[in-house]
Amino acid sequence: MASDKPASAERSASGEDSLIARYFKPLATDPGAFELGDDAAVLKSHGDEIVVTTDAIVEGVHFLPNDPPDTIARKALRVNLSDVAAKGAAPAGFVLTLALRKADEAWLKSFAQALGWDAIQYGCPLLGGDTVSTPGPLMISITAFGRVAAGKMVHRTGAKPGDLVVVTGTIGDAALGLNVLRRGPAAAALADDAAARELLVGRYRMPQPRTALAKAVRDHAHAAMDVSDGLAGDLAKLCAASGVSAVIEAASIPLSGPASNLFGRGIVGIEAIVSGGDDYEILCAIPPTGLDAFKHAAQTAEVPAAVIGKIVAGASSPRFLDGQGREIALPRLSYSHF
Amino acid sequence: MASDKPASAERSASGEDSLIARYFKPLATDPGAFELGDDAAVLKSHGDEIVVTTDAIVEGVHFLPNDPPDTIARKALRVNLSDVAAKGAAPAGFVLTLALRKADEAWLKSFAQALGWDAIQYGCPLLGGDTVSTPGPLMISITAFGRVAAGKMVHRTGAKPGDLVVVTGTIGDAALGLNVLRRGPAAAALADDAAARELLVGRYRMPQPRTALAKAVRDHAHAAMDVSDGLAGDLAKLCAASGVSAVIEAASIPLSGPASNLFGRGIVGIEAIVSGGDDYEILCAIPPTGLDAFKHAAQTAEVPAAVIGKIVAGASSPRFLDGQGREIALPRLSYSHF
Repeated sequence: MASDKPASAERSASGEDSLIARYFKPLATDPGAFELGDDAAVLKSHGDEIVVTTDAIVEGVHFLPNDPPDTIARKALRVNLSDVAAKGAAPAGFVLTLALRKADEAWLKSFAQALGWDAIQYGCPLLGGDTVSTPGPLMISITAFGRVAAGKMVHRTGAKPGDLVVVTGTIGDAALGLNVLRRGPAAAALADDAAARELLVGRYRMPQPRTALAKAVRDHAHAAMDVSDGLAGDLAKLCAASGVSAVIEAASIPLSGPASNLFGRGIVGIEAIVSGGDDYEILCAIPPTGLDAFKHAAQTAEVPAAVIGKIVAGASSPRFLDGQGREIALPRLSYSHF
Repeated sequence: MASDKPASAERSASGEDSLIARYFKPLATDPGAFELGDDAAVLKSHGDEIVVTTDAIVEGVHFLPNDPPDTIARKALRVNLSDVAAKGAAPAGFVLTLALRKADEAWLKSFAQALGWDAIQYGCPLLGGDTVSTPGPLMISITAFGRVAAGKMVHRTGAKPGDLVVVTGTIGDAALGLNVLRRGPAAAALADDAAARELLVGRYRMPQPRTALAKAVRDHAHAAMDVSDGLAGDLAKLCAASGVSAVIEAASIPLSGPASNLFGRGIVGIEAIVSGGDDYEILCAIPPTGLDAFKHAAQTAEVPAAVIGKIVAGASSPRFLDGQGREIALPRLSYSHF
């Protein structure tokens, strides 16, 4: 966790080094992190393959300026852990790049503490990183590592006609949570229901990576990915990678109580649910012969999992059907930055 | 190289996916990158240990807003390759986080092309990444991987009294190059010498990672790190980590022609040379018995390497001596972000 930078200077041990020692060294529990005292870490494969994924979150884009530091930290790590789990891998560690406008000690303390709790909870220690100053928005970029037996990473490719399309948890909550935070229609409609607002906002601020389901995904899924940009768009990506299509029963998509309430009252349409993004649930294609075993494993892992449709042959975009079997038009499938 | 993000949407294949396919897929030559078509990459250890390092560069902090995209790309990768080399490891690949205000196609094309050239030149393919939008300054965060035989990573610890302090290349050029770009005293003093200005600016914009010297460092150095925050400060870190001190002969510090000229004319002092940073040279402690072999290896690798002093017992900061053996006061040892 060394600093690199240009031309200006300050006495060593610098403020930066001291910040790192105080707040981030306690998170570097892996012997390969060398207590953040070197220029690099060592990641041992223990005979497995290393799965690498990287995701950044930017203030004003992926989280709001007044979000609490502890949820920002957790979201930064968890969006990466969600990818690791969807690939069927066990967390192995992460490196962190933190771009800060200033070193606010109270903020950093809360940020690092929450990051440390998650590092312990998910067995994913800090291996190293870089702290840089920026005149712009706060940004956290994390590269996370997982371990998986050679050749066993679960890909987007591999879904076959006849496979069942399964998602974990509930879909759409995070997008509705952001709508609440931005005082959109969902906020007005839930004005009298603080618990519902809190649930949705919590789902936006703090994803629940499905680490406990990684083994079941590895053992049973033909293909998998995490839902981060919206169920519709991410399913389209999985289908395109696998050379197949899919038919989804919209009524089968699992909704939380508040999402179901907002949808039932017509406050939000299906598009807000399936194209909103930030779900960080696992989407996978399970062969019918493996479904019972997968469901059993999900139950044991205490992760809800629902069949929402079927993989079919074809190259067209996945179709979402209403209760009468009519196709629902989805002009936008998912979020794109550009 | 998937996008994660919040609540807004766009038809797939999104602009983002298309940018990635067009500009970055050609860099993903490693089979473990899956042509950037999955959520994660696989990094094989081939029986070695994986060395992990991460460094970010921020517009206005590590590079200037009007720096050309090709040197920005190369600097982003090379500052990481410099760490990999200093640890005695061979490049294995990297992941990239690119935070952009907008998708400027000409800029991206030039950026990705130069990054691709360096990926080939240094044998370090793109494994994955994340492209995000930011309202703030451009930022590039890279996590780079190296391979090294188990237990053979070269640490900051390990320097012993009697070891010789060796640096590669020349010191101070990059800081002087930044001074030229900022129209400081170096720019005025070199007003009539475009070649000298260009050399210094080039050293600021485009570091030369000493990848060719990695094996020699691994074979001969007791301790090593790259000089990124300034020779004085980084040597202090290496000494502190090793529990030793050092004595440096300032006159032995290798200077380029332009740096020597500016120093000789009194335009810049020794502090600008040894505390400026951005050198990305290797600093290492070589036992006297290994010096000849190290020098020979450096010659074969065509990397200049100079003995600048000696490791001594003690816990005090390294001392820099002038030609008369008097200690040079260095109020600031290196750059710190905070």
